[in-house]
Amino acid sequence: MYCVGVDIGGTTVKMGLFKVDGTLIEKWEIKTRKDNAGARILLDVSASIHNKLVEKNITNGEVKGIGIGVPGPVTEDGTVLKCANLGWDVFNVAEQVTRLTGIKNVKVGNDANVAALGEMFKGGGQGYKSLVMITLGTGVGGGVIINNKMLTGSKGAAGEIGHIMVNYNEPDTCGCGKHGCLEQYASATGIVKEAKRLLAKTEKETPLRDLEEITAKDIFDYAKNGDPVANELVEQLGWYLGLACAQIAQVVDPEAFVIGGGVSKAGTILVDVIKKNYSDKVMFALKEREFCLATLGNDAGIYGSAYMVIQ
Amino acid sequence: MYCVGVDIGGTTVKMGLFKVDGTLIEKWEIKTRKDNAGARILLDVSASIHNKLVEKNITNGEVKGIGIGVPGPVTEDGTVLKCANLGWDVFNVAEQVTRLTGIKNVKVGNDANVAALGEMFKGGGQGYKSLVMITLGTGVGGGVIINNKMLTGSKGAAGEIGHIMVNYNEPDTCGCGKHGCLEQYASATGIVKEAKRLLAKTEKETPLRDLEEITAKDIFDYAKNGDPVANELVEQLGWYLGLACAQIAQVVDPEAFVIGGGVSKAGTILVDVIKKNYSDKVMFALKEREFCLATLGNDAGIYGSAYMVIQ
Repeated sequence: MYCVGVDIGGTTVKMGLFKVDGTLIEKWEIKTRKDNAGARILLDVSASIHNKLVEKNITNGEVKGIGIGVPGPVTEDGTVLKCANLGWDVFNVAEQVTRLTGIKNVKVGNDANVAALGEMFKGGGQGYKSLVMITLGTGVGGGVIINNKMLTGSKGAAGEIGHIMVNYNEPDTCGCGKHGCLEQYASATGIVKEAKRLLAKTEKETPLRDLEEITAKDIFDYAKNGDPVANELVEQLGWYLGLACAQIAQVVDPEAFVIGGGVSKAGTILVDVIKKNYSDKVMFALKEREFCLATLGNDAGIYGSAYMVIQ
Repeated sequence: MYCVGVDIGGTTVKMGLFKVDGTLIEKWEIKTRKDNAGARILLDVSASIHNKLVEKNITNGEVKGIGIGVPGPVTEDGTVLKCANLGWDVFNVAEQVTRLTGIKNVKVGNDANVAALGEMFKGGGQGYKSLVMITLGTGVGGGVIINNKMLTGSKGAAGEIGHIMVNYNEPDTCGCGKHGCLEQYASATGIVKEAKRLLAKTEKETPLRDLEEITAKDIFDYAKNGDPVANELVEQLGWYLGLACAQIAQVVDPEAFVIGGGVSKAGTILVDVIKKNYSDKVMFALKEREFCLATLGNDAGIYGSAYMVIQ
């Protein structure tokens, strides 16, 4: 038996053909055609799946199901509640894909939740059954897994960890309209913005001043080399992330946190500073929790999507 | 068919005999005998249930199960991880009660989680299937319900809402050892402490100054009568509670929040100020959520315990 994992992004759709034991047989991508309010996207996805199955001599009867991650809130029955990135309004994605492919078992989830499921299935979170994944990229995303299942929320908005408030005195406005969201400090752009703030405020010498353009990677690299200003920035980032993880743990008490996204390439320096700050900010009963790095990168979505129909 | 709901507290054990449709037939209480490391408690509970069933001519075969709420962390299989209030160490409560009563279906939950389940079943949260209950009493407790089930957490510590940090500049230490926990501002004692702080800081006239001893009730009463200082205190309380609810919603996206405990007797003034502050502090997708008052009072525990075996 086989299954298909699909991860629909704003630019490309990633797809994977899996055996039901989770072995990836082949992965491929198609463009996300967003014109006409995204009306072609599911047609393209369904056609591409059909072609791949024909190519591999796999009949629909041998397909256990199709899992799909989408960039927006999704309710448990597979209804998207608008996907601004794709131009989609409200409709049931699962039903439409079943109609287009003839495959009955179609499961749909929010992309951040699905990525969390993927990391649990075959990535950094293997062996845990309840975890929270935090993805530090252009934005900050989150996914909550409880007893091997995604936490969807009553209106598909669970795990919106990037918009947990962590600073009540922030004058600048977040993309969401609030002030002091985690995303303002822990996204790749947020990290750089905080660096510029600190450099404007301090007179301290640091090689960061000599860079024409600072990146999050530069800050971690200089911190690893012992630069005190870079280390102050990493410490501050750890404070915000540790605090957010603490707030999350007080609510759902996961076994582990999995840190992913481009910023997580910084490695153990990042995990260690989050873990230290986390421990200071949670109750005794929650102190001993695991922090690990995501390992699947951009494939987390297809693995998680596959797992939705395998489990 | 019948079932029994049990709510074990530090002073008394509350018990209720229910029909499986949730009708309460009779409720009664026994003392919690905590001597000898609480070894008698489950013996007393089991004997009392047995006597009640005999009195009512109900056989074990007519009992669908026994639900039990305990004041401490409990894992999903009914194991308590120490209950300091009762003197208990780590053991499986469900198994022991089955052995003592001969009734196989025994479910055990943390008392705050069980109370949340009770309010969903027959109280202020009726009609919702995912909600968060916040109990404002001597301390601040919490229970998270998702799809009609309690969220237990990996080590029984989910829903520890009283220890969400809401103030990062608090010099005083919370009972848990941290600083700035919700409980320090929103428990009955926390509310009074904040009132004393404000009175020491401001010169403003307020009838609160004439009281020999201030209670949380006085503050709400004067606020309703238009006293600006009392209103400032209520506003501040709403800020902390609204923030905590916002942090919770960003993680689990519940349909509703149910506010209970002695402090909630303040009524709509409290619900309104929490709701207003909540809306300022969550993402757009989470703004429209219900806030309601608990209605079962001290009976929430027995109703929730009964529901554990009914559902």
